[in-house]
Amino acid sequence: MVCGINIDQALWKKWRDQAYRRFLEDIEIGYVDPDIVPLIQTIFSKKTIFSISSCSGRIVAVDTHYPWIREDASIIFKKHDEITIQELLKIFETPIRYRCWIIVSGPILHIVAQSLDASKRLLNIARSCGFKHSGIISIRRDGIVLELISGTWTSLLVKEGSELLIDRSKAPYVLNTINAILKEGKRRLHRLEKALRAEDL
Amino acid sequence: MVCGINIDQALWKKWRDQAYRRFLEDIEIGYVDPDIVPLIQTIFSKKTIFSISSCSGRIVAVDTHYPWIREDASIIFKKHDEITIQELLKIFETPIRYRCWIIVSGPILHIVAQSLDASKRLLNIARSCGFKHSGIISIRRDGIVLELISGTWTSLLVKEGSELLIDRSKAPYVLNTINAILKEGKRRLHRLEKALRAEDL
Repeated sequence: MVCGINIDQALWKKWRDQAYRRFLEDIEIGYVDPDIVPLIQTIFSKKTIFSISSCSGRIVAVDTHYPWIREDASIIFKKHDEITIQELLKIFETPIRYRCWIIVSGPILHIVAQSLDASKRLLNIARSCGFKHSGIISIRRDGIVLELISGTWTSLLVKEGSELLIDRSKAPYVLNTINAILKEGKRRLHRLEKALRAEDL
Repeated sequence: MVCGINIDQALWKKWRDQAYRRFLEDIEIGYVDPDIVPLIQTIFSKKTIFSISSCSGRIVAVDTHYPWIREDASIIFKKHDEITIQELLKIFETPIRYRCWIIVSGPILHIVAQSLDASKRLLNIARSCGFKHSGIISIRRDGIVLELISGTWTSLLVKEGSELLIDRSKAPYVLNTINAILKEGKRRLHRLEKALRAEDL
């Protein structure tokens, strides 16, 4: 059985041009996280793929029942870089309603490929650079959408209501781990950029 | 541009039969987590998909530098069900070498679809049941492999070397959250089973 994937190349190209204009605008406004700019530029230099959204990884403190719930969640703190002990202790002290979670996310990218072949090659490269949870999330007439994610992720439960669960004196241990996880994500990002630069995709 | 996906139906069928025999054997040995059996049976009752591996979700305590590292990691505790306060306190007390992480995973399934159309329909159903991180991870001659994952996941840093980071007196809060996350994963599993049962796939 042959199931044809019919990607309209004109539509793909149009989407690519839009995405590229948006990327340049976002850099100008200061929307784009500087750590990810070289990678996105490398992606846009390729013939068969482009990027529609990306994050280089970040540390976020959220007041929410569970880390995956967005409704009624309040962001207490957000940084795309390593945090300091003062910032961590301030998170501990911030009054909350539900639970305080510190979420360290690794890099995430959404890429649109021109063909199935390009998608497969990109997936192989991504996986070899530590983006183990990558896959095709949508097959559309104007392109194949891929999500590239690394597994460098954690969510620490810090507080429940007014009860601080982690002892203040243990904050330095938590800080080291959080920052090391963020750095590992950024390392994988650089590995991906290097691998893509070397590839004729 | 049409990129043909050529799935060899005889190979797909052969793989399906193997997977089904393996599933029956695994039930007999007691390998299969009972919570997931009805869903896997439902999947095997369909004409266009079958399951190759699955987990209904679990609570694991691991001694490792980071939650994603498998090499040199030791599993201290593992349960596919809610845990008790005694079990949690025992995890707190277990001596470790690196860091103790309590990882609560949601359900994860690997499914092989016969066609692109079946893959797309399955992805839509899965996403609507809370399996938000689902995608196609591989396109092979003998089938399209999909990974269905829910975002109900957390990893709590409990201990660094001999330093317990969470106060023992706060263990009941941690326990409630861990068990609630596990239960939410199982709820999504049942939702998926119900949705698939109703679908002609």
